[in-house]
Amino acid sequence: MAVRLGALAERHGLELIGDGNVEIDGVCTLANGRAGAISFLANPQYRRYLASTAASAVIVSTADAEALATPGLVARDPYVAYARVASEFLPPADATGQVHPRAVVDEQASLGAGVTIAAGAVVAADARLADGVCIGPNTVIGRGVQIGSDTVVAANVTLEDGVTIGARCRLHPGVVVGSRGFGLAMDAGRWIEVPQLGSVVIGDDVEIGANTTIDRGAVEDTVIGHGVKIDNLVQIAHNVRIGDHTALAAKVGIAGSSTIGSYCMLGGAVGVAGHLEITDKVMITGMTLVTRSIREPGTYSSGWPVATSGEWRKQVARLRRLGKLEDRVKQLESGA
Amino acid sequence: MAVRLGALAERHGLELIGDGNVEIDGVCTLANGRAGAISFLANPQYRRYLASTAASAVIVSTADAEALATPGLVARDPYVAYARVASEFLPPADATGQVHPRAVVDEQASLGAGVTIAAGAVVAADARLADGVCIGPNTVIGRGVQIGSDTVVAANVTLEDGVTIGARCRLHPGVVVGSRGFGLAMDAGRWIEVPQLGSVVIGDDVEIGANTTIDRGAVEDTVIGHGVKIDNLVQIAHNVRIGDHTALAAKVGIAGSSTIGSYCMLGGAVGVAGHLEITDKVMITGMTLVTRSIREPGTYSSGWPVATSGEWRKQVARLRRLGKLEDRVKQLESGA
Amino acid sequence: MAVRLGALAERHGLELIGDGNVEIDGVCTLANGRAGAISFLANPQYRRYLASTAASAVIVSTADAEALATPGLVARDPYVAYARVASEFLPPADATGQVHPRAVVDEQASLGAGVTIAAGAVVAADARLADGVCIGPNTVIGRGVQIGSDTVVAANVTLEDGVTIGARCRLHPGVVVGSRGFGLAMDAGRWIEVPQLGSVVIGDDVEIGANTTIDRGAVEDTVIGHGVKIDNLVQIAHNVRIGDHTALAAKVGIAGSSTIGSYCMLGGAVGVAGHLEITDKVMITGMTLVTRSIREPGTYSSGWPVATSGEWRKQVARLRRLGKLEDRVKQLESGA
Repeated sequence: MAVRLGALAERHGLELIGDGNVEIDGVCTLANGRAGAISFLANPQYRRYLASTAASAVIVSTADAEALATPGLVARDPYVAYARVASEFLPPADATGQVHPRAVVDEQASLGAGVTIAAGAVVAADARLADGVCIGPNTVIGRGVQIGSDTVVAANVTLEDGVTIGARCRLHPGVVVGSRGFGLAMDAGRWIEVPQLGSVVIGDDVEIGANTTIDRGAVEDTVIGHGVKIDNLVQIAHNVRIGDHTALAAKVGIAGSSTIGSYCMLGGAVGVAGHLEITDKVMITGMTLVTRSIREPGTYSSGWPVATSGEWRKQVARLRRLGKLEDRVKQLESGA
Repeated sequence: MAVRLGALAERHGLELIGDGNVEIDGVCTLANGRAGAISFLANPQYRRYLASTAASAVIVSTADAEALATPGLVARDPYVAYARVASEFLPPADATGQVHPRAVVDEQASLGAGVTIAAGAVVAADARLADGVCIGPNTVIGRGVQIGSDTVVAANVTLEDGVTIGARCRLHPGVVVGSRGFGLAMDAGRWIEVPQLGSVVIGDDVEIGANTTIDRGAVEDTVIGHGVKIDNLVQIAHNVRIGDHTALAAKVGIAGSSTIGSYCMLGGAVGVAGHLEITDKVMITGMTLVTRSIREPGTYSSGWPVATSGEWRKQVARLRRLGKLEDRVKQLESGA
Repeated sequence: MAVRLGALAERHGLELIGDGNVEIDGVCTLANGRAGAISFLANPQYRRYLASTAASAVIVSTADAEALATPGLVARDPYVAYARVASEFLPPADATGQVHPRAVVDEQASLGAGVTIAAGAVVAADARLADGVCIGPNTVIGRGVQIGSDTVVAANVTLEDGVTIGARCRLHPGVVVGSRGFGLAMDAGRWIEVPQLGSVVIGDDVEIGANTTIDRGAVEDTVIGHGVKIDNLVQIAHNVRIGDHTALAAKVGIAGSSTIGSYCMLGGAVGVAGHLEITDKVMITGMTLVTRSIREPGTYSSGWPVATSGEWRKQVARLRRLGKLEDRVKQLESGA
């Protein structure tokens, strides 16, 4: 499925440099270029490969256009342009528009036009799947679940009863949405379950990574805004609210009832304690421990960076001696 | 399925204040109250909503009873009382008491009375499911697995061969119990697997959160006590032992052969190294790194709290300079 | 299935001490020994049990041979010898060499000799399963997936389209290999997906723990070497490369495009930021935050070790005052 470079330029509104008849059949990196593939230059540290790349074409910014040694496409944002061009080389989706005979779909479920349901999927009563929804093999859709149009749910996903998923979402394998929030009350030496009567409401254009879990709310709903992007193995507890266009890297955990603003970015394994508020446009670096609300946009961090184990043990010992060091300084000051 | 407030008072042994004929059909928060719903006041910071809530009734403590502006129920512990009252509004369970024709149940499996097995579930030989057990769609039950009465196993769960689950447990979607412990020996430059011949034994009234993993023991069993509550994405390694009524928040990891006492509470993403002992009634705050045994009940913590990235970089630099600072103080002392 | 001790000695090339006719039918620990079982002594702290163990036989090193109070087997490395002996007592594998009638195998899939496919498994077109491969119940194998001979894939696993798995691998329940890497570009206030056109290539003799996720590459492949051992709930992002015989404990997370060398060992919940290089033979202790490349073999650490919460709060306050303490020391120095 090769396509001419000139056609790519035209379809994606990019400026063509050089021979538009070059045939492109896939993508490559600049460093490991290959004939027939298109690459891109977004990170300046790879500029040194531009002259020698074996790629047949490269997407570059205006500033880099004259350094091209191959045909190319010029874009305001080469990474965005690459994303759009590369999407032409994605394999065809699994959507067949049909219900596999080995799927189990309740008679009371409602399926829009062109809905695909793969083998082994189980769809319960009163589920409503809008047009173009695609449900992967062995995925389980609970009672009353609503899924917006063109959302793709991969294999082995579980959507518990009553959750709502928006349009054009993409749920990766092993995702669990709507499991019971971790609400417990101690009564006479035993934990009793606090019923979790809320649900989960997920906006449009949301991505949810493999094996991520999103719990249903206790009284009100857990809410994920539009355009939110969530990586793998993330935990989102009951009654969390996440604003539009926020991105959560893998292994993030957000405890109950915390609110994350819009356009935030949380790095891998960031932990947010419960009942906090993070305002809009907050970036938090990986493995940060968030124990207080963040009211100002900006970049936040914590964590003890790696050292040799020997040096780390010394650092720990010094931290533990720090109170005594303060005392010694005080002593010196009083003696001065 | 509305119920009269007076009936709720009677069934749950609570004192009725005001009109017992108010009809209740669900729950709400105080802040977002609605007619027909019952709320509760357990956290004093929400007392300010008591006068103005739109809820039709509120569960309160004796101390707050006279501040009620609505009908109410008075309880020693309003949160516990709420949990019991709210359970009346849970949707009916998925238990049908039947084996779905699309389930695959080995002839050598033994099913008690009223066992439900959903579509796509696979139950292997010699599994024994006690009365009232409910197995969700596409869940896989290995050979010789034993499950106690009225335990509910959700969708897409995997119970490996030979594990034992108690009565009245609740396993959420994606849980894996009994996978091979991570036992390896290095032999001539290659890892070889150390057979994991133990199993997993889980007590009664245990909850296991979505996508949590519990490994089987190497020689003896991994053991989870009665009434233990485990949140999502928790890792419990081989030969861990967890005492009764302990609660583990999401993303906790407990390495091999460690023992956690009874009535402990571990916050989110706490990590416990291997071969440690944590005594009873230990509370550990989120993301703490536990590298030593804890012999005394109490509250424990660690972790570097969030700062702006600029301030954090300064903190890190100061920590790294701390040895030199100690030297400078020593120099000052010797000069004094 | 008891076996004579003498036969074990012979089959595994170990020196027999005492009565070779003792019948062994399983394994036990030294402390909880039982008649009929064999134990081993690898950790010196358990030597005190050697005299009194109820085990019928013990595997020991030459140095411990004369302390045996039971029949025994003498090995250069008792733990390795134990691993080999214990493997005789593993229950028979689930391999039947047959395709279950409730599996769904595409006509275009290619199955080698003796391939087992369990109930509910779904195998897509152009998948190629080599001889002796075993696919567990409800596992989903995407289009064009290749799996090497004698690899065992457990229940509820998802292998996305086009991934390659080597021979003799073992994938535990809930594993996801080949889901979309978390590649996003911000365009006019919205995230757009950067197509992930690479795949995942996994070597021979690799173990992947329960609910672990390995993402496909963006342009080139995510690559896992031979003999790599990965525990549960690990996240491996797009374009990560892991060298041969490296072991990753549970909950490790490795961000995009980082490279881990051979013979590395990463402890539980270690986090490695993106675009880093870790050289060969690096050991990193649990929960370490790796924010820079590591060029020298050795042992590395970070993390704030647990304290009582009261002491921790003081430590945090002192860390925050450290800049002022430096100023005070400077003041003292200038005054000297």
